[in-house]
Order: sequence, then structure tokens, then C-alpha cells
Amino acid sequence: MRAALASCRHLRNRMSSNGIHAPGPIPFSSRLKEGRALAEDVWSIYNVANLPADCINLGQGYMNFAPPQWVKDAATQALQGVAENHYSHPKGRMRLRQAISQSYGPQFNRELDVESEILVTSGANEGMYSVFVAFLEAGDEVIMFEPFFDQYLPSVTFNGGKPVYVPLHPPAASNKSPTSNEWSIDLVELRNAITPRTKMIIVNTPHNPVGKVFTREELQGIAALAKEFNLLVMSDEVYDCLTFDGKEHVRIANLPGMWDRTVTVGSAGKAFAATGWRVGWLIGPASIIRPTLAATTRIVFCTNSPLQEAAAAGLEQADQRGYFATQRAEYTERRKILTDAFDRMGLTYTLPQGSYFILLDISNVNFPEDYPFPPSVLGRGRDFKACWFIALEIGVSSIPVSEFYCEEHANIGEAYARFGFCKDVDTLKKAAERLQKLKNYIQ
Amino acid sequence: MRAALASCRHLRNRMSSNGIHAPGPIPFSSRLKEGRALAEDVWSIYNVANLPADCINLGQGYMNFAPPQWVKDAATQALQGVAENHYSHPKGRMRLRQAISQSYGPQFNRELDVESEILVTSGANEGMYSVFVAFLEAGDEVIMFEPFFDQYLPSVTFNGGKPVYVPLHPPAASNKSPTSNEWSIDLVELRNAITPRTKMIIVNTPHNPVGKVFTREELQGIAALAKEFNLLVMSDEVYDCLTFDGKEHVRIANLPGMWDRTVTVGSAGKAFAATGWRVGWLIGPASIIRPTLAATTRIVFCTNSPLQEAAAAGLEQADQRGYFATQRAEYTERRKILTDAFDRMGLTYTLPQGSYFILLDISNVNFPEDYPFPPSVLGRGRDFKACWFIALEIGVSSIPVSEFYCEEHANIGEAYARFGFCKDVDTLKKAAERLQKLKNYIQ
Repeated sequence: MRAALASCRHLRNRMSSNGIHAPGPIPFSSRLKEGRALAEDVWSIYNVANLPADCINLGQGYMNFAPPQWVKDAATQALQGVAENHYSHPKGRMRLRQAISQSYGPQFNRELDVESEILVTSGANEGMYSVFVAFLEAGDEVIMFEPFFDQYLPSVTFNGGKPVYVPLHPPAASNKSPTSNEWSIDLVELRNAITPRTKMIIVNTPHNPVGKVFTREELQGIAALAKEFNLLVMSDEVYDCLTFDGKEHVRIANLPGMWDRTVTVGSAGKAFAATGWRVGWLIGPASIIRPTLAATTRIVFCTNSPLQEAAAAGLEQADQRGYFATQRAEYTERRKILTDAFDRMGLTYTLPQGSYFILLDISNVNFPEDYPFPPSVLGRGRDFKACWFIALEIGVSSIPVSEFYCEEHANIGEAYARFGFCKDVDTLKKAAERLQKLKNYIQ
Repeated sequence: MRAALASCRHLRNRMSSNGIHAPGPIPFSSRLKEGRALAEDVWSIYNVANLPADCINLGQGYMNFAPPQWVKDAATQALQGVAENHYSHPKGRMRLRQAISQSYGPQFNRELDVESEILVTSGANEGMYSVFVAFLEAGDEVIMFEPFFDQYLPSVTFNGGKPVYVPLHPPAASNKSPTSNEWSIDLVELRNAITPRTKMIIVNTPHNPVGKVFTREELQGIAALAKEFNLLVMSDEVYDCLTFDGKEHVRIANLPGMWDRTVTVGSAGKAFAATGWRVGWLIGPASIIRPTLAATTRIVFCTNSPLQEAAAAGLEQADQRGYFATQRAEYTERRKILTDAFDRMGLTYTLPQGSYFILLDISNVNFPEDYPFPPSVLGRGRDFKACWFIALEIGVSSIPVSEFYCEEHANIGEAYARFGFCKDVDTLKKAAERLQKLKNYIQ
């Protein structure tokens, strides 16, 4: 073995002494060859930069309005300090951890310890990545429901994990629009997906892109299996403040026996219309938070300080300002503008009971097969073409839903385009008006 | 095989049906067992929270002054926008990429392409972590010079890499204080450390904690080996704007044949006294930036937006304001306050030609062996005890340097305590005065 190494090294030496100094670029890690890591992602293809300037962007899930003034004011105030511009503790700034404890404690029916049960992360995304770093062993299987938030897949494979998919079943086709909760899980399928290598189940409620708010019964079914097979549950609840129609947001961590195996993910970006602030948090038992702290400390060291202060102010004052109730009412109005438009067009959609996305059924939208699609769209699902066509001809961008499925099941997603309603009322009204032109292309 | 799996699964089922639902906490990844990931790190032990309230903190490397007002004003202005509060492109905001291109282009003697040769990251730390994610294969060796910035070690091992250490040799003991550049590398040792599994060399100039600014000749020697063995070079140059005594900062990426294999790391936190903003950047060829973009996109998705705008303003205006020259003069004055104090005490130190750290030789500082040290310090090197004693008895905190060495070589670091001079003049003067009391404990 040592001789083989020496000989190989000798070879490299010889090669270079022959003047072959740069035999092509230095190879990147094989982990980038999995999980679509190097493919052009859907966010880049349907980026505003690639679309006509006047296209209304209902694609990527960020707001076209600013965070509340009082939250921004807290950021401005933090910038005037000294410590508020320097490193935070890797666990997060104490003020924010205390605000999270105060705000979420009652929702978890427990006192949340700011030292061991709360971890501030650089966005919910980095928080979830840190959980994978902290818990995945090479070959560990991670179960996710399809469609899934597309970042889960490469984040799992980058850390040696193997994604395992369990479908959320769309309701049977009908000429009536279903609610998001008619998308169903099959607990037998979930049980069958569990193997001795299963480490973790990812729950996402309210769900992106379906908008489904998982019921207590569904979560009880998942929890029973997690306990039976001793699995970790990562519950991505970044849309927890955005539920509609009186739908109750149930936290799986609160079900009997689940606290010790569940880490719950939250987001200041979603809560305070500040997706670019990159402040998120994890809540869970010390046995999960401590290893995840070790991971995030190495990945980012800490999260930006001034915007943590602002997020803290947001949580501190939200109740007295009735902020989340107002926001929920605003989003209910925004949702209605789009659903009314879809109703007028005669297309069905999934009425979301949470999150800020609507899945429009585009099965009956016809577009010319010879339309000049760019190479990034050709060779992808029918929904990629439909979304491109709608963006260019109708002037409203959306996201093709097959991106949220593994390759084998991408055909299920091809029936849908995801429209975000995290935009101001005027923009949504204008989009609603433009979308009526799509009637000309409906079968 | 399948039968074995089924039987194992059956066993798990049976265990749980016996009511054993939670057989201890879910195990964390074995990657946390390497690289000191779960050990209490030096920053936590010597954290202000663990030290007396009136202790002057010259330990952790952050400033006790704020970023320049005009840079903070740019942050405040960005907060008033809409897009500036939402997701940035994962490559970074265009304004910041353009400012980096303008500011660094002349230093690299090339036009830096904002689309393919610049990547904004969530602090330099996350940028480096992303390079490891993007390039390391399990078992790949990464060479780092000791002492090394402590984050390198777990960041490498988390991604399957194996750290290989090459010493920076301290100058021979003398009663005269050496300069940082008397710490030397041995190119034969570097060559001998290279194996067929070597993938990368980490260069850190100006160096933390030694303060060494690598000379052109030293970098040429490293570069020759990198080319001979086709290695990637990660050059951590976060202190590039902090060199003293007219010392030239040479970029290894500029040496012949090195651009294509070098990624250079920069930091807004170090440049603009804003360590808590978490804005850093990578500069390099598309062959390195593209895979690293794929990694950072999954890890954090993007970096916080408002503070990217502020960093852009900082780079845009730095030249016309003479900002870096002024800052350099200020740090030269700060350095002198501490070195004068050390001279008066009769202790030798390494005069840093870059960065904002001074290594004080504490070999001759005696402390009572029976001093009540906390458990976190007992069992560590002599420097851990000395730093604790100095913090508690003298009232000035510093960082023990053995932390920057691998376990096998920790004894070299035990001779030194690292003092940061990234503090205002009054604080440093007060620390200098207190430190005179240490004379009572010098052999």
C-alpha cells in the first residue's frame, strides 16, 4: 500500500517535471455530482434577470414590500451601537434568544431554556443544513414528503445522507378546486419507506409548495412511527404565522413523547417580510441543539448581529401590536385576489390553508409546442415550458412544481405551477388582470 | 442482505412494542467526534461572560469601536429600500460584486468578472467552509501551517478532509523581541507533507495569530509546490488591509501560474470594523467559484442583503476617503501602546507586521500552581492557566496560543498568549497600565 502510494506520488512528480503543471481544473467534490447541486436551479431559470423587465414576479417567494417600519427602526438603532455590530455568541444574541423563549414558550407549553434549547442560525436554511451536518452519518436515510422544498435534497446529500421520498397525494382531478388539506399522506407508505438506515423525517407544515397545514391526526401518525423507529424529526415550520381560515397550526414537537426527538425551524424572514436578513432559529431539546450548535459554529461562526436585534424587537412587540393577526388578514386578502382570478379563468387550484403559495393546475393550459423555449427549459417537464410561456406571453412568472419532486416522480408535479401571493395588493390585482388572457390558451 | 435488514427492522419494532420508545438521545454524527467539534472552544472559555465584569477583553478579535459612520449610514439607507431587505442572488448583490471587482481588480492585475470570479459569502468563515464542501473528497488531505486559525480544523474534518500540519517555526529564544517575519517555514517540510491524497494548502497572510506577512519568496516556494503537485490553494487574506511598517502584502494568486488554482478570501468585518455583519467574499477563477457557489447556495442560500449594500458603499468610498491608510495608522498606534507596555515589563513578544494580534512570550510568567483554575482550564496547556491567571489577577484577557496547534504540537504554543489590539486607544492604555502588575510574577 505504502509502495503504491509512493509510486503514485512519483508519477505526479514526473508528470510535473515534464512541464504538465495544470492538468485541467482541480476536480470538485463528488458530493456536487449528486442532488442536482450543479444543475441550473429553478430560481435561476425563472429569475427576474432572465424574464422581460415588465413581467410580474410571482415566482420566487419573497415580498415586494418592506419589513414593518418599527422592525426596520430597531435595525437602524442596533447599527448605532458597538456590540451590535460585532460577533454575536454562536448561540445567537441573548436578546433574540430571550424574545424567542418568550414568544414561542407558550406555543410549546414549556419554558424554553435560552442556553440549551434555542439556536439562532443564518436563516432557517442554514439552521436546517446544520442539523444535517450534526446528525447525518454516511448512508443515513432522510425521509421527505414530495413535493419538497428543493433545498432539502442537496443539503442531505452534501452530508452523506440519502433522500427517501414519500408522496403527498394530490386529490383526484375534479372541476372543483380542492383545499391544500385534500393532499394526503399514506402512513403505510411512510412505514414502508423506513429502513434500519432511516435517521430522520422532515416535516414541513405549513407546507411549501402545497400550502397544506398538517392535521393533528396526520402528525400523530408520523409521530408514532418516529417513536417506533427512534427517528429524529426536523419540522420546518417557517410559515407558522401564515395559516388561514382558522386552521390550527399543530406543532409535532408538542405531541406526547416528541419533544426529545424534534427540532422545530423558524424564520424571521417569513415572520417579518425580511427574507434578506438571514435570521432563523431552531427550537428543540439540548440533545439536538448542542450538536447543531457545534455544526453552525464551524459553518458560519455566528449570525449577523444588527438584524438579530431587529428580529428580537419584532418578536418582543408583535403581540401588543397585533402584528401577526393583521398580517394574516392581509395575506388572506392577497390570496383571494389570485384565487378569484383563477376562478374567473376556469382553472382549478389548490386553496392553501397556510404559506403564501397557490398551486394552479395547468394541465389544461395549451401552449405552442414550437414556442422558442430557452435550452434551460427544454428537456425539463411540461410545467417548465408552461411557466416560461405564461411568463413571456402573459407577463406573470411562476415556478414549475416538478422541481419539488425527485426525477422519478417529476411527472406528478408537471400538472402545477406555483404562484406566490407575498406581493402587494396592486401587484396581485395587475397579475390577476393579465392572467385572464390565459383563457385563450385553455383547452 | 435483505433478510438481515428485515430482521434488524423487526428487532427495532419489537423493542419499541416493549415500550422502549426512547433508547437515549438520537446519536449525532461521527464527524462531530473529530476536530475538537464538541470540546468547549477557547472562545467560550475566555468569553467575557466567564470573566470578571471589569476585565479588559483583549482576547477575542473584535473591535470595541463601531464601524465608520458613513458605512453604517449606507446600511441604514439600505434598510429603507424593499429589495435591499429581501433575498440577494446567491452570488451576492450586484452592487457589492461590482465594488469588489473595482476595488480588488487592480490588486490582482486583472478585470474580475462579477458573474464568475467573485462570490459573496456569509462571512469569510462560511466562504472557507463552502470551499471545503465544494472540493474535499473523503480522505483528502489539507495542509495548514501551525499555528492555524482554529476554525480550519473542524471545517476540514466535517467535510471528510484530513488536516496535515506544517509548522511555522518560532525564532530562537532571545532577550530581544523578534518580528513576525522571523517565524519561518521550511519548504522541505512542506514538500514532505505532500502525499498523493493532498488536495489543498491553506495559506494565511497576514497570519492569525502570528501576524506574519508572508514574503514573496516564501509564497513563491509554496506556489512552486502547489503547481508541482496540482494543489488548490486557499489563501485566507482577511487582514489584507492591516499591514504595518511598509510591509508589502503579496497575493499568492498573483504569482505566475497561480490564478487558476487559488481562491482568495476577504472580509468586510475586518475591513470595516464590523465583525458581526457576516459579509465576506471569495475571489478566484470560475473553476473554483462555480462549485463553491453551488455549495454556499445550499448552505446559506444567500448572505444578508442590507449589510452587503453597506459593505459595497465601504469599498466604493474607501479610496477617496483615504480610509485604509487612516485605519492602518490607527492600528500602528494601537500596536505601539501594547508593545511599549510589554517592553516596560521586560517580556519579549512577536512584533506583528500584519493583523491585529501580538504574541506575548509568557514562558517567564509564573503563577501559583494551586491557583483556583476552573475545570475548563485544568488539563489544558500551561498557557491556558497563564491566560486565566492574567485575566483574573491582572484584569486583561488574552487567548492561549496552544489552541492554534494540533494536540501533538500544542507545547510550542504554550509559550505564548495572544493579545488583540483591535481596541480603542483608551482601553489599550488602561490595559497597558494594568499589565505592569504582571512584573510581580516574572521570573
